[in-house]
Amino acid sequence: MNEATDATADVRNVVIVGSGVAGLSAAVYAARADLEPLVLEGPEPGGQLTLTTDVENYLGFPEGVGGMELIGNGKEQAERFGAEFEHGTVEDATLADRPFELELSNGERLRTRALIVASGASARWVGAENEDELMGYGLSTCATCDGAFHRGDDVLVIGGGDSAMEEALFLAKFADSVTVVHRREELRASEIMADRARDNETIEFRWNTELEALRGSQDEGVTGATLVSHPEGYPLEKAANGADVTRETVDVGGVFYAIGHTPNTEFLEGTAVDRDESGYLYTRTDDAGRATTETAVEGVFAAGDVADPNYQQAITAAGTGSMAALDAEAYLETLERTTAPALEISQ
Amino acid sequence: MNEATDATADVRNVVIVGSGVAGLSAAVYAARADLEPLVLEGPEPGGQLTLTTDVENYLGFPEGVGGMELIGNGKEQAERFGAEFEHGTVEDATLADRPFELELSNGERLRTRALIVASGASARWVGAENEDELMGYGLSTCATCDGAFHRGDDVLVIGGGDSAMEEALFLAKFADSVTVVHRREELRASEIMADRARDNETIEFRWNTELEALRGSQDEGVTGATLVSHPEGYPLEKAANGADVTRETVDVGGVFYAIGHTPNTEFLEGTAVDRDESGYLYTRTDDAGRATTETAVEGVFAAGDVADPNYQQAITAAGTGSMAALDAEAYLETLERTTAPALEISQ
Repeated sequence: MNEATDATADVRNVVIVGSGVAGLSAAVYAARADLEPLVLEGPEPGGQLTLTTDVENYLGFPEGVGGMELIGNGKEQAERFGAEFEHGTVEDATLADRPFELELSNGERLRTRALIVASGASARWVGAENEDELMGYGLSTCATCDGAFHRGDDVLVIGGGDSAMEEALFLAKFADSVTVVHRREELRASEIMADRARDNETIEFRWNTELEALRGSQDEGVTGATLVSHPEGYPLEKAANGADVTRETVDVGGVFYAIGHTPNTEFLEGTAVDRDESGYLYTRTDDAGRATTETAVEGVFAAGDVADPNYQQAITAAGTGSMAALDAEAYLETLERTTAPALEISQ
Repeated sequence: MNEATDATADVRNVVIVGSGVAGLSAAVYAARADLEPLVLEGPEPGGQLTLTTDVENYLGFPEGVGGMELIGNGKEQAERFGAEFEHGTVEDATLADRPFELELSNGERLRTRALIVASGASARWVGAENEDELMGYGLSTCATCDGAFHRGDDVLVIGGGDSAMEEALFLAKFADSVTVVHRREELRASEIMADRARDNETIEFRWNTELEALRGSQDEGVTGATLVSHPEGYPLEKAANGADVTRETVDVGGVFYAIGHTPNTEFLEGTAVDRDESGYLYTRTDDAGRATTETAVEGVFAAGDVADPNYQQAITAAGTGSMAALDAEAYLETLERTTAPALEISQ
C-alpha cells in the first residue's frame, strides 16, 4: 500500500460539495438518514444567501430572516444530526471509478460512494467602487429577492441580457423609475424580452454606459452611483486606455447587477457529468418523466443553483437539496445490496 | 348580462388551490410580485403538515418547528404581502376557455387568468380505533419525517407495497424492530424492494393481519396496537362478516401507515390537465429539458405533493410552490402583452 492509498483509506457514504442552502438542506436529510455526510464548505461558505440581508420569501419566517441567520440556523440544524463540515474547495473529481475521488485545493484527497454537487452559481460582479461594502445594502444581484424593498425608489439595473430585462420588468412594479445601464448601444436580450422592457413606461435605457462607483453606506443603503459613458461603448475600457469619457453622478436608491451567474462546476470538467453551454448541470428525469437530481453519472447528484439557471431561489435550492439526499440514500441502498455479496466473499 | 356573469365579473390574476406548504409558498411569491393571489384553503386547511407535531428536516429551524406553527407562520407571511385566503373547495374547473372558471362546493364561481394547483395528496388512513387522536403522536404517515424519533422502539408499518417497504427499510436504521403488517400473505411491492426488506434482519412480517386499534395518548404517544388476523387474509372484512379471527395486542412505540396517498385532483377530471394513473399531475420540462411547474394546460401550474409522488417533503413542496408562482408571473406577463392591443381597441 502506498501513501496515497493510505491517506484515502476512509471511504465516505456521501460528500456534499457546497454549504449554501442546497448543501445544508441535503446535509440535514443525509445526516438524519444516518449517512454521516461530509460538507465541503467551498470558497464562499454559506453561498449566495450570505450576500443578502433580509430574506422575505423563504416560507416559514413571517417577519423575514437574515441571510446569514438562515445559513447559520441551517448549519446548526445539519450539525445537530451529525453532519460534518470542513473548509475545503474541490479542485478535481475522478468519477469514472467507484468510489469517487475528490482532490481538494489543499492537496487532500477524499473518497466517497455518493456525491452531491451543491456548489452554486456565483453572480458576476461589476467591479465598481464600494460594491463589497454595499452588497446586500441596496446593491443586489436578485430583483425577485429584493425588489419589494424599493417601492418608490429610482433604481439602476446593470446589464443588457434577458435576465437584465427580467429584473427591470420586475422592478418596474415597485420602483418609480428603472434605468437599464448597458455598456453597448444594443441589447443582448432576446427580441421579445427587449420589446417588453422597451414598452414599459417605467423603464429607461442608458446606452454605452457603465457603472464606475457606488455611493452610500451600510446604514443609509445605496444613495447614488457614478456612471461613465462613451459614444462608442465600453467606456471603462476606453477610460483605462486614456480616452475621454463622460462621468455623471446620479441619485438612486438601489442598484441591481444582472450580468449573469457563473455555475461553479469547473471541477467537473473532464468528467461524464453533463453540463449546458454555461456550465449548469443537467439532471435526469425518471421513467415517468418526473424530475430527479441524478446527473449523467450514477451516484452523482446535483442540487440548488448549480443545476438551476431558471429559478435560483433559496427555497427552491433547499427543496432540491433534500431531493438530492433522498436520491443519494436510495442509490446507496442499491449499492449496498449489489456489493454486499462481494464484500462477504473477500472477508 | 345574466346573473351568473354578474357574479363572476371579477377576474383574478391567480388563484391558488390549496393552503399547505406548496400553496403558501406560491402565495408568498405571487403576493410579493403584486399579483394579489387568492388562496382557496380546501377541506384540510394547512394540508398534511398539520398532521405532524415536529418537523425537524425543514431547513432553517435548528430545533425543529411544529407542523401547525410552520403553517401558521407561512400564512401570516403570505397575508403580510397581500395574499387573500378563503375557505373553499373546488368542485369543478373549466380550463378550456380563458379566463379559467372554478366552481366551489358552496356554489360560488371564480374566474382567474392563471391557476396554481397545490391541492396536495392525502395519505390514506386505515380506519383503526384512536387514529384521529394519535396521528402525529407516534402514529405517522411519513417515515422520512418521523423515523428518527423512534430510535430503539418497536414499530409497525402498515402496508404491503413499495412505499411500505421503503418506510420499513428506513425505519430499520433506527428502530429495534420493524414489523410489516399486511392484510394478505403476499406483498404488492416490486421484487427488488420486497427482497431488500426480507433480507433486512430488523424487519419482520405479519401476514394476513390488519391493524384494528391503537393504544396510547397524546402525552405518552403510541404504546400498543391490536392486530387481527385470519389465515385467508383480509381479517377485518372477515370479522365484519362474522368469521372467527385471532386478536392480539402488541406493545409498540410507533405505527406508520404506508397504504398510499391519493392526490387531490378529482376536480380536474375532464380537463386537459395531464395526470398519471394514480391521479398525480404531470408538469412540463422546458426546451432545455429542465423542470417547470406548467401542466399540459398553458396557464395552469402545479406545485407540491399533487405533482410529486416521489419525494413529498415539506421543503420540496415549498420549493415548487415558489417555482409555480414565478412561472405564473411569467405567463401573466406574456398574456398581458398579447392581449393588451385587443383591449386597447375595445376601449
